[in-house]
Amino acid sequence: MVKQYHIQAHPQPRGFHLITNLVLEQIGELPKNGVLHLHIKHTSAGLTINENADPSVRVDMNEAFNHMVKENESYYTHTFEGSDDMPAHIKTSLVGNSISLPITNGQLNLGTWQGIYLCEFRDHGGSRKLVATLLS
Amino acid sequence: MVKQYHIQAHPQPRGFHLITNLVLEQIGELPKNGVLHLHIKHTSAGLTINENADPSVRVDMNEAFNHMVKENESYYTHTFEGSDDMPAHIKTSLVGNSISLPITNGQLNLGTWQGIYLCEFRDHGGSRKLVATLLS
Amino acid sequence: MVKQYHIQAHPQPRGFHLITNLVLEQIGELPKNGVLHLHIKHTSAGLTINENADPSVRVDMNEAFNHMVKENESYYTHTFEGSDDMPAHIKTSLVGNSISLPITNGQLNLGTWQGIYLCEFRDHGGSRKLVATLLS
Repeated sequence: MVKQYHIQAHPQPRGFHLITNLVLEQIGELPKNGVLHLHIKHTSAGLTINENADPSVRVDMNEAFNHMVKENESYYTHTFEGSDDMPAHIKTSLVGNSISLPITNGQLNLGTWQGIYLCEFRDHGGSRKLVATLLS
Repeated sequence: MVKQYHIQAHPQPRGFHLITNLVLEQIGELPKNGVLHLHIKHTSAGLTINENADPSVRVDMNEAFNHMVKENESYYTHTFEGSDDMPAHIKTSLVGNSISLPITNGQLNLGTWQGIYLCEFRDHGGSRKLVATLLS
Repeated sequence: MVKQYHIQAHPQPRGFHLITNLVLEQIGELPKNGVLHLHIKHTSAGLTINENADPSVRVDMNEAFNHMVKENESYYTHTFEGSDDMPAHIKTSLVGNSISLPITNGQLNLGTWQGIYLCEFRDHGGSRKLVATLLS
């Protein structure tokens, strides 16, 4: 069985943002067993799973990605959308646009420390559209 | 319901190549709602989603991955398949071998600017095999 | 149809470890066609697909990730869990927590050289929990 939900995430600054609760609030009752597929419909923002407790992890993730993929590299040719744009495309492909999570006994079967991150790679990315698909 | 298709992508030079149309041509009618899972059966080529319009993004992606994962690093021990081989394995795990995309109302529910990229990380990787699975 | 299995992977040192056989032994008969979704319930270990033959690839992958994401960067603020912890979180988001694999004619439809890697990014990560979900 397939159920689908469209989720709008409000604008966020560049960084990694915990959206587990936002997602759970938007999707209805979960099936007994299955998979939740979550997709973000953009090319400069991604989704990943990481530590849901200490916010310093999210701060360091942002810093690490900014160091790994720098702005204004001399070899960038796609520069007309601003210095944060091409790095945002590269970072998006590093984390990816989709995550899939197991559902067990009607609940997301995440590890104790796992949360869903929306990775905003633009400085002013605006609101972001997600599609949640429940497969069971 | 499950439907599966085998897709052959013709040889491409090292780089990021837009294959959205190739994939859509090879798979039959899409279900009303569901997920398209696409897998590439190789360890030196990957799949990702990124900007479908300006080809300069694909040029810069290639350049950025070549800078991030360099050839001939002194610590490489897996070197007998050529200097582009070990970097290709590493890049493949950075982008991944599979993507999953939502299907809504019988169409791929991608963002306006999203396209499917085949990431060819070898200089002469030859033709590449993909498996498309429709889950609905 | 959905079938789900819980898999425990015994403790491994930091590195990339081939677990294709462990996974296949733990899950029962595969459906004729479908997708195997595999999720690791941790934030400092990931899953990826890569070369299943020459172990030197796994050695170089570990070395490459250690160079790409260094310990003790001056900008890390999440440092109280040890110098291998924050790098482990970053590496986990680079490879991801889940993989999905096509199943065709009752078998995993991997490429000839593809195997499943458990990516252990901590020095002493302990045993790791995985959830395998068969969708068909």
